[in-house]
Amino acid sequence: MRPFVLVNVAMSADGKLSTRERRQVKISGSDDFARVDRMKAECDAIMVGIGTVLADDPSLTVKSPELVRWRRERGMDDHPVRVVVDSRARTPLRASILTRGEGKRIIACTARAKPEDTRELGRYATIISAGEERVDLNRLVEELYATGIRRLMVEGGGQLIWSFFEAGLVDEFSCFVGNMIIGGSDAPTPADGSGFVMEGDFCRLSLQEVKKMDEGVLLVWKVSENSSVTG
Amino acid sequence: MRPFVLVNVAMSADGKLSTRERRQVKISGSDDFARVDRMKAECDAIMVGIGTVLADDPSLTVKSPELVRWRRERGMDDHPVRVVVDSRARTPLRASILTRGEGKRIIACTARAKPEDTRELGRYATIISAGEERVDLNRLVEELYATGIRRLMVEGGGQLIWSFFEAGLVDEFSCFVGNMIIGGSDAPTPADGSGFVMEGDFCRLSLQEVKKMDEGVLLVWKVSENSSVTG
Repeated sequence: MRPFVLVNVAMSADGKLSTRERRQVKISGSDDFARVDRMKAECDAIMVGIGTVLADDPSLTVKSPELVRWRRERGMDDHPVRVVVDSRARTPLRASILTRGEGKRIIACTARAKPEDTRELGRYATIISAGEERVDLNRLVEELYATGIRRLMVEGGGQLIWSFFEAGLVDEFSCFVGNMIIGGSDAPTPADGSGFVMEGDFCRLSLQEVKKMDEGVLLVWKVSENSSVTG
Repeated sequence: MRPFVLVNVAMSADGKLSTRERRQVKISGSDDFARVDRMKAECDAIMVGIGTVLADDPSLTVKSPELVRWRRERGMDDHPVRVVVDSRARTPLRASILTRGEGKRIIACTARAKPEDTRELGRYATIISAGEERVDLNRLVEELYATGIRRLMVEGGGQLIWSFFEAGLVDEFSCFVGNMIIGGSDAPTPADGSGFVMEGDFCRLSLQEVKKMDEGVLLVWKVSENSSVTG
C-alpha cells in the first residue's frame, strides 16, 4: 500500500526548472502560487530531494493563514509532513525545512548515512533508512503509508521526480508552463536522471486539465498505466 | 532586414525532444502532423541543424498533395527552400534533405568547411559561408532575406533553436506538448546550448494560443521583446 503521489513543477516554455546554475527563478505568478499552496495544504506530506534543499532551502510550509486554519479545523498539523530524500543525511541542521513552521519532518536516508549525522538530524526529524546506495522509493512510500500518509506531493528536483517516474510511483503530474525561454543543455528539467531509452518504456499520461493561468498555462496529467492503491 | 522566424517543436510533458540517445520518437499525432505540414507549406524556407540531419535524416518536404498543389498554384516550388546549418559542411550527399522532393537547398557553413566538401555539396545546394567557427545566424538570416525568404521555420534541434533564441531572432514559438514522460538529463530539449544564466536575459514570451490536439496540447507563444522586420 502506498500514498497517492502528485508531482508538481513549474517549468519554462522550453522545459527548464531553472538555469544551468540552478538558480531559483520565477516561472509562475500569484495564481499558480495560490494553487500550489492549496495543493500543499491538501496533502499529508510534501517531499523534495536533498539537491533542492541545498540549492533553494525551501521551507515547504503552507503560506496562506486561511489554509493553515483549514488544516487545524480538521485536526491536522499546520503544515504537511516534510520529507527529504537524502541518502547520506546531508540536510543542514539549519535548513528551513527543519526549522520553519510546526509539524513533522522525515529524513529518508540509506546505509551510506553516517550514524553521527542521522543522530543529529534525529533531534529534528524522524529518520527512515531505506536502501543501501540510493533511497528505495518503493519501500519509502510504503513506510510513509504506514505512518498515515495517504496523499504525497513531490516538489522536486528533476532527479527525484525522475526516480519516481522510473519506479512507476506517480499518479498525477501538474506542470505550470511559464512564458519564458531559459535554455541550457545542463539546466534542470522536470525529469532528469538517465531517462527512458525505449519508446515502449515511456511513462504515458492522459490530459486532465488545461488552464491559462498567470502568463502561462497549467497542464494537469494523470498517469495512464500505474495503478495507485489509494486515490 | 530578416525573415519572420517561427520555431516549431514537439516535446514530451517533461520537455524532451527525444531520448538521450536522440532516437526519433513519436510525440504528437495526426492532427499535429497536419498542422506542421501546413505550417511548412506556408513558409518560404525550413531550417534544421546538421545534428538533426545526421540523427533523423528528415526530408522536410511538404507531405500533403493538396498543400503541394496549393503552393504550385501560387507559383512556388513544391517544397520550401531547405536550409541546413552545417558549419563544417558535413551534410551527407545522400541525405534526404538533398535528394527527396523538388526545390532549392541551402547549406550554411563557415570558414571551417573544407573546399572539397563545399564543392561536392555545391552540386546539390547553394552554399552560404557565414562566420568563422560557428554559423553567424544574424548574417545568415539577412542573406536568406536577400534571396527572397520572408517566412522561415526552424525545426530543430535544440542546439540550433537555442542559438536562434540567444541571438534574439525568434518571433514565434510553437510547441506541441505530448502525453508522455521521457526523462533524462542528457536528452535533447527545445533549447539546449549554454542557456541564459541571468533571469533578466530570459527570452520573454506571450501566450497566443492554447489548443488541445491529439493526446496533448499545442502552445503558441509570440516572443515579446524582439521586433522582427517583417511579419
